[in-house]
Amino acid sequence: MKKKKNTKKIILVFSGGMDSTTLLYYLLKKKFSVEAISFNYGQKHQKELRSARNICEALKIPFNIINMQFLGNSLNSSLTQAGKKIPNGHYASKNMKSTVVPNRNLIMTSIANAIGLSRGIKKIALAVHAGDHAVYPDCRPIFIDSLEETLIVSSGENVRVLTPFIEMSKSDILKIGLKLDVPYKKTWSCYNGRKKACGKCGTCIERLEAFKDNNAIDLLKYE
Amino acid sequence: MKKKKNTKKIILVFSGGMDSTTLLYYLLKKKFSVEAISFNYGQKHQKELRSARNICEALKIPFNIINMQFLGNSLNSSLTQAGKKIPNGHYASKNMKSTVVPNRNLIMTSIANAIGLSRGIKKIALAVHAGDHAVYPDCRPIFIDSLEETLIVSSGENVRVLTPFIEMSKSDILKIGLKLDVPYKKTWSCYNGRKKACGKCGTCIERLEAFKDNNAIDLLKYE
Repeated sequence: MKKKKNTKKIILVFSGGMDSTTLLYYLLKKKFSVEAISFNYGQKHQKELRSARNICEALKIPFNIINMQFLGNSLNSSLTQAGKKIPNGHYASKNMKSTVVPNRNLIMTSIANAIGLSRGIKKIALAVHAGDHAVYPDCRPIFIDSLEETLIVSSGENVRVLTPFIEMSKSDILKIGLKLDVPYKKTWSCYNGRKKACGKCGTCIERLEAFKDNNAIDLLKYE
Repeated sequence: MKKKKNTKKIILVFSGGMDSTTLLYYLLKKKFSVEAISFNYGQKHQKELRSARNICEALKIPFNIINMQFLGNSLNSSLTQAGKKIPNGHYASKNMKSTVVPNRNLIMTSIANAIGLSRGIKKIALAVHAGDHAVYPDCRPIFIDSLEETLIVSSGENVRVLTPFIEMSKSDILKIGLKLDVPYKKTWSCYNGRKKACGKCGTCIERLEAFKDNNAIDLLKYE
């Protein structure tokens, strides 16, 4: 019998944060052969890209950064524009809307899938989760379904978008990751890319809550 | 009564070729306020970008080139990869498949729409046409429909993708353009980005056929 080619190969859109790092370990546990792709879209927390690289190097996972830094100033978001302050507060609150980067997941997935298809890899994984749904339209199930259909008709290939965490909270994800011994100390979440995490932006607050929910200690250094 | 803002503003994905240049003139005729965005995705016929710039400058249309040249070698296409020869022959023939760039229209539209949305522009125009349908999946009506839906759920905005030429042949488009006095001499189609157009690649052959069908003369210089 002929062995199926590339069935377990998958491209991971990888930020170096908690969720996508947990997804990386989760996919490896499920025996996927993972290639990670990160994006520099001019985010102020480019520090996450260093975390992404370190994590992949330690696991000997193929890793690439797509440099679209030039885009940052054309995109209306407090995550990318110099003059805009990153808001403090809870992840799901209204003022977090300024952190939306228009079409971010669509742009990243289209490019990562194009690179995958060029090498015969039809599967792609995203670490979107339920905590994102309130503020980020491009993390909702309706978007992922539509995205998968568009990728299929765009390429004529049987593309699959895997989002196993899409109905989970960050606490649920951390619970999985703790069992998988994910080295969370190496991950970076904070939207302010300073030396230590700020502890006050939406993603820091959500991260700290998840650790509290799991009675676990976050070894990352906070200001 | 309050005037509606930006209703007639539109982003055009612009290559500097026959079809998108005709679409530019067509949209201007329809009183759209057009901003053009071109992409350097590592295509061998980067010469088209010079045409794009010249055409926009002459019309005083805002124009930007998004530089994604680095992507070229990661994408499996004879249009971008150094070792792959661009095929001769008719546009719709099977050997043209090597000229497909995976997810090209999806990547370009996602980025151009993100830039548009960042400035309140929800409309976007693509010059796909019926001649593309045979070889390029990302030019077919089923793709455009799916793309529009994905852009809407990606952003939560009422995005519209305009493709007025989608059921036309290149001859039909040229017919429109000749009436609009489109300066075809300034446009560039040939996949081989040499000094003169090759006259033998798919896009040259389709272009020459369109001029023949319209009893018109192509003033572009051919080898």
